[in-house]
Order: sequence, then structure tokens, then C-alpha cells
Amino acid sequence: MWRYEKRLEFPINIKKRDPRMASVILTQYGGPDSELSAALRYLNQRYNMPDERGKALLTDIGTEELAHVEMICTMLSQLTKGATIEELKAAGMDKQYSQRGMDLFPTDSFGNPFTAAYFGAVGDPLADISENMAAEQKARAVYENLIDLATDDDVIQPLLWLREREIVHFQMFKQLWDHYKKLDLK
Amino acid sequence: MWRYEKRLEFPINIKKRDPRMASVILTQYGGPDSELSAALRYLNQRYNMPDERGKALLTDIGTEELAHVEMICTMLSQLTKGATIEELKAAGMDKQYSQRGMDLFPTDSFGNPFTAAYFGAVGDPLADISENMAAEQKARAVYENLIDLATDDDVIQPLLWLREREIVHFQMFKQLWDHYKKLDLK
Amino acid sequence: MWRYEKRLEFPINIKKRDPRMASVILTQYGGPDSELSAALRYLNQRYNMPDERGKALLTDIGTEELAHVEMICTMLSQLTKGATIEELKAAGMDKQYSQRGMDLFPTDSFGNPFTAAYFGAVGDPLADISENMAAEQKARAVYENLIDLATDDDVIQPLLWLREREIVHFQMFKQLWDHYKKLDLK
Amino acid sequence: MWRYEKRLEFPINIKKRDPRMASVILTQYGGPDSELSAALRYLNQRYNMPDERGKALLTDIGTEELAHVEMICTMLSQLTKGATIEELKAAGMDKQYSQRGMDLFPTDSFGNPFTAAYFGAVGDPLADISENMAAEQKARAVYENLIDLATDDDVIQPLLWLREREIVHFQMFKQLWDHYKKLDLK
Amino acid sequence: MWRYEKRLEFPINIKKRDPRMASVILTQYGGPDSELSAALRYLNQRYNMPDERGKALLTDIGTEELAHVEMICTMLSQLTKGATIEELKAAGMDKQYSQRGMDLFPTDSFGNPFTAAYFGAVGDPLADISENMAAEQKARAVYENLIDLATDDDVIQPLLWLREREIVHFQMFKQLWDHYKKLDLK
Amino acid sequence: MWRYEKRLEFPINIKKRDPRMASVILTQYGGPDSELSAALRYLNQRYNMPDERGKALLTDIGTEELAHVEMICTMLSQLTKGATIEELKAAGMDKQYSQRGMDLFPTDSFGNPFTAAYFGAVGDPLADISENMAAEQKARAVYENLIDLATDDDVIQPLLWLREREIVHFQMFKQLWDHYKKLDLK
Repeated sequence: MWRYEKRLEFPINIKKRDPRMASVILTQYGGPDSELSAALRYLNQRYNMPDERGKALLTDIGTEELAHVEMICTMLSQLTKGATIEELKAAGMDKQYSQRGMDLFPTDSFGNPFTAAYFGAVGDPLADISENMAAEQKARAVYENLIDLATDDDVIQPLLWLREREIVHFQMFKQLWDHYKKLDLK
Repeated sequence: MWRYEKRLEFPINIKKRDPRMASVILTQYGGPDSELSAALRYLNQRYNMPDERGKALLTDIGTEELAHVEMICTMLSQLTKGATIEELKAAGMDKQYSQRGMDLFPTDSFGNPFTAAYFGAVGDPLADISENMAAEQKARAVYENLIDLATDDDVIQPLLWLREREIVHFQMFKQLWDHYKKLDLK
Repeated sequence: MWRYEKRLEFPINIKKRDPRMASVILTQYGGPDSELSAALRYLNQRYNMPDERGKALLTDIGTEELAHVEMICTMLSQLTKGATIEELKAAGMDKQYSQRGMDLFPTDSFGNPFTAAYFGAVGDPLADISENMAAEQKARAVYENLIDLATDDDVIQPLLWLREREIVHFQMFKQLWDHYKKLDLK
Repeated sequence: MWRYEKRLEFPINIKKRDPRMASVILTQYGGPDSELSAALRYLNQRYNMPDERGKALLTDIGTEELAHVEMICTMLSQLTKGATIEELKAAGMDKQYSQRGMDLFPTDSFGNPFTAAYFGAVGDPLADISENMAAEQKARAVYENLIDLATDDDVIQPLLWLREREIVHFQMFKQLWDHYKKLDLK
Repeated sequence: MWRYEKRLEFPINIKKRDPRMASVILTQYGGPDSELSAALRYLNQRYNMPDERGKALLTDIGTEELAHVEMICTMLSQLTKGATIEELKAAGMDKQYSQRGMDLFPTDSFGNPFTAAYFGAVGDPLADISENMAAEQKARAVYENLIDLATDDDVIQPLLWLREREIVHFQMFKQLWDHYKKLDLK
Repeated sequence: MWRYEKRLEFPINIKKRDPRMASVILTQYGGPDSELSAALRYLNQRYNMPDERGKALLTDIGTEELAHVEMICTMLSQLTKGATIEELKAAGMDKQYSQRGMDLFPTDSFGNPFTAAYFGAVGDPLADISENMAAEQKARAVYENLIDLATDDDVIQPLLWLREREIVHFQMFKQLWDHYKKLDLK
């Protein structure tokens, strides 16, 4: 089980409203390579890892990804808070407003609801971990795409930090892969 | 952010393998009225609640639902652990095995991957909370369906406990609804 | 079975073309809290209601929701009728045109095709009706979002009327819920 | 708008419970070539037909398809009414029961929720009507598949009658196609 | 099996970047009536055709549709190649960029990932082929919609050519339908 | 473009009907880690590879995966050819028959229609190729799951051969990854 601690893993403090930037960062909330996708993927896979080391690593990284979901949600919330109808229309967010008002919702940038079809689990630790390594690479690339689109340093800093975590996680999964490879599982 | 605590909210100790029972409990992992659906619904809605009381309640219940996801996963894991190919075939779980081996995966009982289309958020606290009240009622009913299908007391006890939590959460959401109703939001 | 009567439940007479407004009202045709979602939800649930009163109410409201689908379609049709390619591009509706020409289609505002995953049925009258009460609340909130986005009184009047119907239906479902609660079903 | 008339278009009177037969007839409730798919397809397309003849025909057939949805639901209801947990398990319907109890739900035979992705509308009367002609052919074929699987005459008679209606509708759409072809639309 | 031949079935040589035009042509890559939908539909159906003539025709047209997928991808690639972030934003393609960078992806114009729910197969040659005839009509109509939206002759010429192929394929499927009709299958 | 060559990449000659085995092999036709998923993934990604080597490799492997789709379809076809209604019922394939007759269809083992959500493309060659490496690992694992379920050597031999190709492709993608890593792209 989890205990909630009322603080963000990395501070978010965006002072300039920018609903259009929110509409692209959205993909890291509920898109294919999102933090939500990562969290659920790792927390799902842990039950079938062959040793405690694997179970623990997946639990730890999965738990951290939940904190990243929270960071992304906070960014989305700050980027849109207090926006007027006119600002939302100008940012092309009237579609979002019509359906959700000012609520958040886990979709990709196009508005596709999050689906577990974005991730996998095939019952083989090496294959599952190779999916995780790929997931971290893809999330890193998406953060780079977002940084290309961003102009505000308050937005760029957390994106850079999140990108960095993807690289760290990739390394950790690589080590676990090497560990299981040596054990000659299957 | 969250801290992981290595214990279950309620103990699961299923001694008798029963893959077919796993194949129906699965709906509470990744189905429409699942614990995962509940967790993501509440953790998503909290950003737009009008006061701290609402934000806190949604965070608390959302966090507890994550613990329920973990309980359900543990049940699925214990019900299938060590099953032979023949046992899986007899339980109609060869489809599951072909695609996921012995891994878990968040689908409903029919194998539909979890989708965020199962829940909503419309930007109105009263409407959002009424969705939550309905969600708790529906989850309660699904637990009753599962209890009808179960025969092992080790399975029934945690299902009864989870059903009970749905009723408690329903009451808590009802109180929040009454609180916001009085504030005459919108 | 149903008899078609060639008139709208409430008159629609929009004189000013506004494809962009159509692109948001669309969510009430094929979105999560749409009239279509409501109609199918109620007409589906009626088969398992425990008495004639429940069956009749769900049939009546379900049938009225079909009339609301027709009203929404008429609004969409009038808001786009005769639009030029340039007007459609200016309204961001070239995507719609590329795929459907001037035809309608039941999607949400983002273009997600309608799915039955938006509604539920769990085999328990109290839970099913609580879903219906929530659905009416959510549809009410979506109409309020749309009214916020609308500027033409010819559009606002039917939206206000439809919003009003949601409140009436909520009350009717509330009474049915109280009735079944007293019967102590399950 | 529509008026509900409390009678079926064709009588359904199934005296022998058969949950497994229900689990395949289900595809005509919420599957790709289902009555629901047909009803929504025609009622959607009518707004952009080029003359009154087309609009009227689509409205009439769309309305009749709603009556067919009702017939299918009645069959599903009679085939499962009063089934015990053991009968449901024997028929492989414990998955259905876990998630929906004894409620109906518009899915295909595999449990995929109905989606509007099953039908189309491209803004061209000839193309739209050719889709309708194909839809009627496909529904006819599905009824033939179901009749192959059925053994009870109370089930076979309504399936035969519904199959017959598909052939009649195909002819009506063919005549409309010929009519529009002569008008040299586009 | 297939051999790749490094040339396009029809030359594509678009000299003027136009990301917005790409965002609508996209529907013919991964949308409901796309070339991908056509290719998979025909290559899937061929296994159950009652004679060699049917199997061969479906294989041939299915293989040609793969070449059309390649033409569409080449158009998308040329229309976006080298676009700056500013050009992408102006074209409303920042959503696409956030998630895919400059990669292609098979979605419809709205960003819905391609799904096999767009096509059918019911086990009856006449019904399957009537679906194919409808598919060709619908694809023709979508090309006409796209031509309405296009302004550059380098874009229009391949669209006109692809539209022409739909008409030819429709005729070929019509002849196969007549052939099977005479054989009185089923 | 592609030329069809009327032979399988590896011979399939299954003499013993086994519809239930077909119902699990199905996942390699239209499931998450299917041959279809692989073919579309690679043929999609090739447009944005930074050099001819990458484009050529993705085209070659993508084309080979199309041949694997054909092998899988041939297996499915031979495993079910001529099955009686009773055999299909005994194998739990009456659901399949109700909806598709004896036609094939690209779904996973559970009947979920194939979706492009199963694969990705993020605009970064290293990330895209890491996804491909993971895909090959996952497909290998699924073939191992299927071999665990298979009992007929006519089925096992092609599965073993296909499994082998996944390992070869993994190596080829690994070399391309190393090549791009050295170029220090991004």
C-alpha cells in the first residue's frame, strides 16, 4: 500500500498561463508514453518477476512514476488555471472545455482516453524489461519534443528534470536486464 | 508523491489455486468499475475541487484505491501461481497464457484493456462527485456478483472487506456532495 | 417498438452558421455524457429492473433521449449547413470534412467515435440507477459548459431547455432510487 | 421524435433457457453488424441525404432497426432469465455475470463494447448507401451463422424473420442507390 | 510472401511544404476508409473465398493497396519534411509533434489510432465482397473530400489517381460479386 | 511497392484440425505483439530514419513480417478448415463463428480488434529502435507461450522457426541501435 506525502517530487511553479502548452504536455498524462502508462506498466509487471530485486525495482520505479503523474497534472493545472473562455478558444481548448470544463483528464494530445493497450506484459522477464527500457527511451524522446515546443523556463525546467529521470530509469532497467540475462532465465 | 509501504491494506492468503476465479476477479483490476478505474478517477478529479476538503478526500480515497488495486493483483497472483498448462486450459485461461504467460494485465473479465473512457470528469464538483457515488455503488454490486461466484472463504473474505469499503466511500462522497450542495456551487 | 413522429421535441431554428460551435456541441451527440449515451444506457438497463415502474420509467426517459439525440443532430446540421471550405478551415473543421464531408457522425468533441464503454450496467437496480443519476448530473454540467461557449441565442435556448430536462430526469431517477431503497433490494 | 408502442415488431417467446445461445446472439445487440449498429448508422446518415425520399427511407429503416434491437434484447433476456450460477458457469457466462450480473450490455460476442467505429459516413450519398447495402448483407450473413448455431425453433423463427428483413432493406437501399445514381450526384 | 520493389506505383513529388494538408490526408493512412484499412481487409478475407479467382483478386488488390499506403506515407512525409516548430504550430500540428516528433503514425485525421474495427469479415463471400464494394465507394468519396481541400497540383494529381483506382477496384469487386451470385453460394 | 510471390516463407502443413489451438495462435495475427503489429510498426517508422541503412533495414524486416502474417493466417486457416459446428462449440469458437463464420479476423486471443495503439513512433531513431528491439523480445516470448500450449509437431515447427526470426531481427535492430548511438543522434 501507499502513503501520500503532500509534496511534489520536484517543484512546479508556473506563473504564466499557457493553455496551448497544456494541450501538448497532456500526452505525458494519458498518452502512449505517459507517466501514467509507465506507472501502471511497472506496478503490473512486478508480480511475475523472478526475484526480490526485480519486484523491488519495479515497485520503486512504479511508485516514482505516480509522483511524475502528479507533477504533470500540477503543470496542466497551473498552465490553465483561471483561463477565460476567450483564452481557451484562442488556444483551441474549447473542445476540452466543452467536455471537461476545467477538469483534467488522462488522454493523449489528441484527446484519446488512456488505454492499457499502450503497454505490455508477456510473462518473460527479459522481454518485459526490454519493453521497460524502450518505454524510458520513448518517454525521454517525448520530453525532448515537448521541450522543443516550450518557451517558458518554468515549464522547461521540470520537463528537463523528468527527461533526466527517464535516462536514470533506463540505466536501472538495463542493469536488471543484464542481471536476468546472466541468470539465463528461459 | 507517494511512499510505498510493503504490506497489504487487508491480508490475502489464498491457499487453493483457482484460475477460473481469477479470470472473473480480473474485472476489478482493469474493468469498468475496477479499483484501478476508481483510483485514477479520484486522483484525476482532485485538481479542480473547490476547497481543500474535497481535494484531500479525493487524494485519500484515490490513494486507498491504489492499495485495493494491489490487493486484487495479489489475489490474481495467488489464484494462478504455479498452475500447469492443463489447469489453465481447463479454466479457459489458455488465451490469457498465450498472450501474457503468467503475467497479470489490467483488463476486464473479457480481456478488454483498461480504458479511461470508463470514468469521467466534467468540471462540476457536484456532477463529478455524483459520478463517484455511482462508481462506489457499482463497485459494491460487482463485488456482490463476485461473491456469488466464489466458493473459497479465503477469496470471499477479502471480497467482503473490499465491498464494505465501497459502502464507506459512498458515504464519504455523499457527505462531500451535501457539503458542496449547501455551498450552492454553480 | 417505436413510431417516428416528424417533429422535434423542442424547436431548433438556428439562422447563423457557426461550424466551430458545432464542433463542441458534437460531444452531446457522441461523447461520454451525450444524449446517445443516455438513450442507450436507459434502454439497455430496463430489461433487468425489478418492477414495471422501473421498466416503464427507463423506457420513457430512454425514448425521450432519442428525441434529444435528434435535437442535437438538427443543431449540428443547421450550424454547418452550406459552409464553404474556407469557413470549415477557419473553424478547424477541415479534419471533419476530410473524413465525413458534410455528414454528421457520433463522436465526442475530439473525434473519438462513440463507445458503449461510456456507460454501465452491473445487475443491481440501486447501482444502475445511481449511475443514471450521475449521468444526468454530468450531462447538465456539459450543457453548462456549452452555454458558456455559446453566443447565439438560437443556440443557447435549446441548450438551456435540454439542461432543464437533465434536472427533471435526475429527480425522476432519484424517486425511483428511493422507491427501490425502501424495497430493500439486495 | 419517437413514440414508444409497447409491443414487439415480431413475437419472441422462448421457453427454454440457453445462456450459451445468448452469448452468441449478443453480437446482434452490440457487435459490428448488429441491429444497434444499423439503427445508429441510418439515423445518422439521414441529415445529409439530398432529397426527402432518402431522408424518409433512412428514418423509417433506422426506426425499424430500433425495434430489432428490442427484439434481440428480449431474446437475450428470455434465454438467460432465472439462470443459476451453475448454469451460467456451464455456459461460460461467469465473465458476463461478474461484470454485469443479469443485466444486458451492448457488446459483440467477445465482450467488446459497441463502438461507432463499426459504421461510416463520408458525405457522399452513393457511398453512404453502398455502406448500407453492405451492412444489410453482412447482417444477413450473421443471422445465417446464428441459425447454424441454434437448435431451438423458438430461437430460430425470430432469427429467420430478422434475416428476411435484412434482405428487404437491402432491396430498398438498392432502389435508393439506383435513384441517386440516375440523378448523377457528384 | 512479398518482394519489395523500390519505386512508387505512381510518382509523388510535392515541392511545397503544407503540414495542414498532411493533417487531413492522414485519414487515408490510418482512418476508417484508409488504404491501410483496405489492404488489411482484402488480405484478410482471401482465406475464405470459395475459388481461386476470388483468392487471387483479393491478393492482387490487397497488394496494390499496400502500395497505396506507401504513396500516402510519401505524401505525408514530403508535406511535412523540414517544417519548423513555428510552421507546425501554425498548422495545428504541435499535438502531432509532441507525441511523434516528425514520425508518421497511422491514425485518422483526428488522431484516433487505426483499428481493425473499421472493417469486417462475416464468412459469406457475397457479404464480404459487398463490404469491399462499399469500401471502394467510401474511399473514392474521401479522396473527393481531400481534393476539395487541396490547392497544390502536386498534391491533387496523386489524389486524383488514387481516386481513379478506387473506381477500378469497385468494378472488379462488382464482377466478382456477380460471378459468386451466379454460383448461388449459400 | 510490393510484388506478391505465391509461396510461404516457411512451409505450413498442418494435417490435424485443432480450432482451440487456432484461438490462441490468433494473438500473433492481430494481438499486441503480433506479426501485423510488427509489420506496420517497421513500415511506419522507416520514413523518419536518418540514413539509408535504417530505412532499408526497416523496409526489409517490415516486408518479412508481412510474410509472417501470411504464415500465421495459413496456420489459422488449416487449423480450422472443415470444422463442424460441434467441433467449434467444443473448442469455444462458437463466438468466433457467430460473428465471422469461417473467416479470419485480426484480433488478439480475446477477440479485441487489432489497434495501432499497440505500437509507437516518437520521432527519435534510438527510441524507435529500442521499441523495435523490445517488440522482437516480446514476440519471441509469445511464441514460447504458444509452443508451451501446442502439442502437434506440424504446429510447433513453424512456431519455432518464427521464434527464431524474432531473435535474428532483435540482433539486426541492436546493430542499427549501436550504429545510431555512435552517430550521436540527438
